Amino acid sequence: MKPIEGRTRVIIEQIQPQIDCGRYPARRFIGDQVDVSAAIFSDGHDHVSAQLLYKHEQDSSWKVLTLEALPNDLWSGTFVVDRLGLWSFTIRGWVDHFDTWCADLRKRLAAQSLQQVARMERDPVTSDAANPDAANPPLPGTATTPQDIAVAFTVGAGLVDAAVSRASGGDASALSEIASSLRELADQERPYYEYPLTSEAEQLIAKYPDHSFVAMPKKELHLWVDRERARFSSWYELFPRSASPDPNRHGRLRDVEAILPEIAAMGFDILYLPPIHPIGLAFRKGPNNSVSAQPGDEGSPWAIGSPAGGHKSIHPSLGTFEDFDHLVEALKRHGLELAMDIAFQCSPDHPWVKDHPEWFIHRPDGTIQYAENPPKKYQDIYPLNFESSDWKGLWDELASVFQFWMDRGVRVFRVDNPHTKALPFWEWCINTLHKTAPDVIFLAEAFTRPHIMYSLAKSGFTQSYTYFTWRTAKSELQSYFEEITKPPVSDFFTPNVWPNTPDILHASLQNGGRPAFMQRLILATTLAASYGIYGPAYELGENVPVRHGSEEYLNSEKYQIRRWDRSASHSIAPLVTKLNYIRNSNRALQNDLSLHFHNVDNPQILCYSKSAPSANGEPPNVILVAVNLDPTNEQGGWIDLDLKRLGIGHDEQFDVEDLLTGTHYRWRNRSNYVALRPQIMPAHVFRVTRLKP
Amino acid sequence: MKPIEGRTRVIIEQIQPQIDCGRYPARRFIGDQVDVSAAIFSDGHDHVSAQLLYKHEQDSSWKVLTLEALPNDLWSGTFVVDRLGLWSFTIRGWVDHFDTWCADLRKRLAAQSLQQVARMERDPVTSDAANPDAANPPLPGTATTPQDIAVAFTVGAGLVDAAVSRASGGDASALSEIASSLRELADQERPYYEYPLTSEAEQLIAKYPDHSFVAMPKKELHLWVDRERARFSSWYELFPRSASPDPNRHGRLRDVEAILPEIAAMGFDILYLPPIHPIGLAFRKGPNNSVSAQPGDEGSPWAIGSPAGGHKSIHPSLGTFEDFDHLVEALKRHGLELAMDIAFQCSPDHPWVKDHPEWFIHRPDGTIQYAENPPKKYQDIYPLNFESSDWKGLWDELASVFQFWMDRGVRVFRVDNPHTKALPFWEWCINTLHKTAPDVIFLAEAFTRPHIMYSLAKSGFTQSYTYFTWRTAKSELQSYFEEITKPPVSDFFTPNVWPNTPDILHASLQNGGRPAFMQRLILATTLAASYGIYGPAYELGENVPVRHGSEEYLNSEKYQIRRWDRSASHSIAPLVTKLNYIRNSNRALQNDLSLHFHNVDNPQILCYSKSAPSANGEPPNVILVAVNLDPTNEQGGWIDLDLKRLGIGHDEQFDVEDLLTGTHYRWRNRSNYVALRPQIMPAHVFRVTRLKP
Repeated sequence: MKPIEGRTRVIIEQIQPQIDCGRYPARRFIGDQVDVSAAIFSDGHDHVSAQLLYKHEQDSSWKVLTLEALPNDLWSGTFVVDRLGLWSFTIRGWVDHFDTWCADLRKRLAAQSLQQVARMERDPVTSDAANPDAANPPLPGTATTPQDIAVAFTVGAGLVDAAVSRASGGDASALSEIASSLRELADQERPYYEYPLTSEAEQLIAKYPDHSFVAMPKKELHLWVDRERARFSSWYELFPRSASPDPNRHGRLRDVEAILPEIAAMGFDILYLPPIHPIGLAFRKGPNNSVSAQPGDEGSPWAIGSPAGGHKSIHPSLGTFEDFDHLVEALKRHGLELAMDIAFQCSPDHPWVKDHPEWFIHRPDGTIQYAENPPKKYQDIYPLNFESSDWKGLWDELASVFQFWMDRGVRVFRVDNPHTKALPFWEWCINTLHKTAPDVIFLAEAFTRPHIMYSLAKSGFTQSYTYFTWRTAKSELQSYFEEITKPPVSDFFTPNVWPNTPDILHASLQNGGRPAFMQRLILATTLAASYGIYGPAYELGENVPVRHGSEEYLNSEKYQIRRWDRSASHSIAPLVTKLNYIRNSNRALQNDLSLHFHNVDNPQILCYSKSAPSANGEPPNVILVAVNLDPTNEQGGWIDLDLKRLGIGHDEQFDVEDLLTGTHYRWRNRSNYVALRPQIMPAHVFRVTRLKP
Repeated sequence: MKPIEGRTRVIIEQIQPQIDCGRYPARRFIGDQVDVSAAIFSDGHDHVSAQLLYKHEQDSSWKVLTLEALPNDLWSGTFVVDRLGLWSFTIRGWVDHFDTWCADLRKRLAAQSLQQVARMERDPVTSDAANPDAANPPLPGTATTPQDIAVAFTVGAGLVDAAVSRASGGDASALSEIASSLRELADQERPYYEYPLTSEAEQLIAKYPDHSFVAMPKKELHLWVDRERARFSSWYELFPRSASPDPNRHGRLRDVEAILPEIAAMGFDILYLPPIHPIGLAFRKGPNNSVSAQPGDEGSPWAIGSPAGGHKSIHPSLGTFEDFDHLVEALKRHGLELAMDIAFQCSPDHPWVKDHPEWFIHRPDGTIQYAENPPKKYQDIYPLNFESSDWKGLWDELASVFQFWMDRGVRVFRVDNPHTKALPFWEWCINTLHKTAPDVIFLAEAFTRPHIMYSLAKSGFTQSYTYFTWRTAKSELQSYFEEITKPPVSDFFTPNVWPNTPDILHASLQNGGRPAFMQRLILATTLAASYGIYGPAYELGENVPVRHGSEEYLNSEKYQIRRWDRSASHSIAPLVTKLNYIRNSNRALQNDLSLHFHNVDNPQILCYSKSAPSANGEPPNVILVAVNLDPTNEQGGWIDLDLKRLGIGHDEQFDVEDLLTGTHYRWRNRSNYVALRPQIMPAHVFRVTRLKP
């Protein structure tokens, strides 16, 4: 069957950015320059023109940008996304007879004026050998004549006439004059002609292109634009129930407020609290995850729901809604945001169990199916059934949990185990919430297989936990970060890296002592624009596992209240503060896409740079980091710098300032030696600056 | 907005093969095993199952194949395409509650029988750490009890009940019995259970899966399946007008018949003739492309159309339709097929010019626009206007040209300059013709930029000319052939390589003498499964260009009749014959996808292998080629063999037989030395054979 319009000769392929054939939006951040590229071509020798069309979802019409032709039929264009939310873009291309005419006329006139023809190069890649004679100059008798040029002028006048019909007002009259002048020239049959159009005239004609047979992809593509904090964020996690200054009292939200100055002074911008809802009583776990809690045991905040309420309630021991609202305000004053933990699972005491039994799986014996990972049983947790006949009711209720807290001012959520809830639910839920609140950040706490982690990101999660926690060797750090900071992954996945969490005390921290805590902190803060620590366990170097070979903490705060001495002398809080200061004052560390690894001849030293171009009058910002990954021994090595990535010319002298110590070095060559002692400071964090000439 | 069915939890991504998001079919050959792969996954711990559905366009229902799970959520399946034409395939996936139940039950029983639980490994890539406690063994009091297992049996019986409702006849009764036996077991409450299902029972249940919430991509994907000759073909091009044994007479189709035994004996399977239509008189070109022909000059066969007719006529000097039909029959008897040249362009004398002036561009002075590449003019050629208001009539007429010759038994077309005709036309034209004649082969003679060449292949062209003619250095040969013999390109593009054509006498042949002709022939015949030469110019080493720096032949056969001495002693016809014999008797050389390059420590020696697996009782076939690319000097070098690609084990002795000379060598190691003298034989073409133990 023939197409509806078979005269559409232009093909548009390989539009980027594009995720899974346009199934999901690509993700960008507010203020980003979006580079769009595509392959656009047609048959034959005619010139092609192409435009990028783009708009924010609330714009009523497209903005239009002329694409630039690169070699080999690739085209590109750039626009800035200056509003949060969903954007659309597409491309249109057409055979541009006017542009072809201009180029051909120039060649005819050049041939005529030279009185001879330059020999045409013949290469199938860069030019076209369509005609068997293309490699040969024109034969005598086939050269351009004044008559040929007169005909060309008349053809051109016809093309301008057509532009007149598409124009109006002053443009139409100006175009009419151009057409007339071309016809006059044609009538003169001079022996020699100059090129007849000014560049203003050419631009005026090009302003009214012939879109009769314009090609356009069937589907628009989409971008989702997040706010700056989605790209660059520093998270601090703490258990509010351990925040009490009185060791005999359960910590309260008001106690958290008292610690805010300290957290803000460390330079964090997001305070993340584990679930603050009422904790279940049935099958409550005791300290160290013991099966039966004793009276007074506080239970796990992730066993959500009790007679006091569920996901829209506050654990009475933590405080009231008034306290909550007060905390949200206090955070604002300290330049901090609250991240809430949303864990969609229920204790047997959760109100949903009674009110919506259809949201759970029922066993043949009439009981509700608790969480299992056979043969292990978690009788204190009921998972939700995403195959419930009332899935629509379930989805609505879950989305309303986010909306409930959003209505109380929360704009950041850390979502617990999203990969155990149906992926189509997340896509619907996040998109629905984002429609009216595009500034909300969702962090996916999924530690599972790559396809599922990436699918959560495609479905809408703003940031994602990563495998960073388990990537300790140089080669695995490098290959993992190269994967997640480059397209296609970086087009939908934004990492948030954590050296520890309440669930994960990695062996490297158990065994590496204080240097390991410093190393992993430096890696997290400088490899990724978003990171977080679970404190004060991290600053205080808490490193004892519940048992050998386990990644669980001994006396884990998940099951009991802990008392922390934040002022302990061995705390690495000063290093945390320093690193956050460096991150906040260096734009290079506020993005992931510029990450670049430099070779070092020592497998224990990892070296990488990040950069940000000059902007708003600020010069380019370039950070170069070298980390000794060995927690025990001094390591030295020669770095082979990729100077181009640092913005440094060949044989140019430049300054590197270690921002951790303030020491300046003057370097010139690619090769530079570093030696790093883990007990003192396992890394250099250099700012690289060109010297004034 | 919620989806229609939100309980569909499985995601299917990255289905391969797939061209441009399914916009075009992937291409395969009859008898191919098609390997389909995809990423398929769901949330949580439930098992996923998936099937491949596939059918030929004439099948009324899908064939169904269970996909196999590979690591990391990848799945694969293979089916054989045993009919020409269009195939469809898609994938469906679902959460398999029965399979999950089986696996969980096995774990429960194992735990029970061991009386202890193996410590679960925790690695985010290979296993799932969904639950914060996954790294720990179950706590006392949470171990599997006989009651747990009894409940599991009852749950299983329910799943089997559901299968009963989907089954019928004997299967339904057998399933009912399985359900009953599970219920009986559950009632017994034994202290210890064996696994209750035979593998036959499991398979029977799995035969009736629960597809309530099955996931399936919106669009089916397509494959186009060509016949064997599309993959493996040896083309010989000659000008029939030069075929006369009488030097004073214009060659005729009957004269071509007389040469067929010779061409067949050389081992070719396709005879390709330049256009055989009437040649235009207006602006006819003389010898060496001179502008005005003299009386008696025969003109270019590509200037098609005269009062004697157009694309559906035969040039009277060549013969009649009876002669044509006779030639087609004669070719069959010699195991040859005819390839016709279809060049959609017209001489000013073509009947279309008078009958369909609307198919051409008219200039303001009333004349028809001739072909131009400004400032060059080709007044003997009128291009067709694919923006004609009667584009539908034009498309129909052009397609009817192919149909006309197909009705006379032609099954192979070489299409001249398809890249100067609208790409959507080709897609429609080839697909339309292929609907009733899927065995027709279309070779695209396009020497232009990569995107356009690839777009022609995607649009339906079976084979394509390549840049081989201009790729002479080792690195450019290697990188080009790696590009075109691997996905994605090999999924839609099939190369047909030509060391020369009537348009292209490459400098390497002009300057390299007989060794260059041997080298380029060996490369063409062994690098690509499809190749062709323009003869007898090639065998006879015709190497004089029309002028220095030109790729045109002096006294080109395009513009005049040539007399060739096929029996000349310097002819390399014996080498052509030998190489075609080697190609015809070695399956390894009949495919492109197995091509693999081996390292050699000399930049003038190119080494590569091709292989075919054992089939129909024949052992695997492995060919290893080493070519000296220097036409002047002997070159020697150490080849570092990738033994695995040759099917040879480490430290295994094997035989290599040079099929050009019959000499055998016994090799053992990766490293082997070759020395090649271009004047004698610039290559080894080895058959690699394992020695009997």
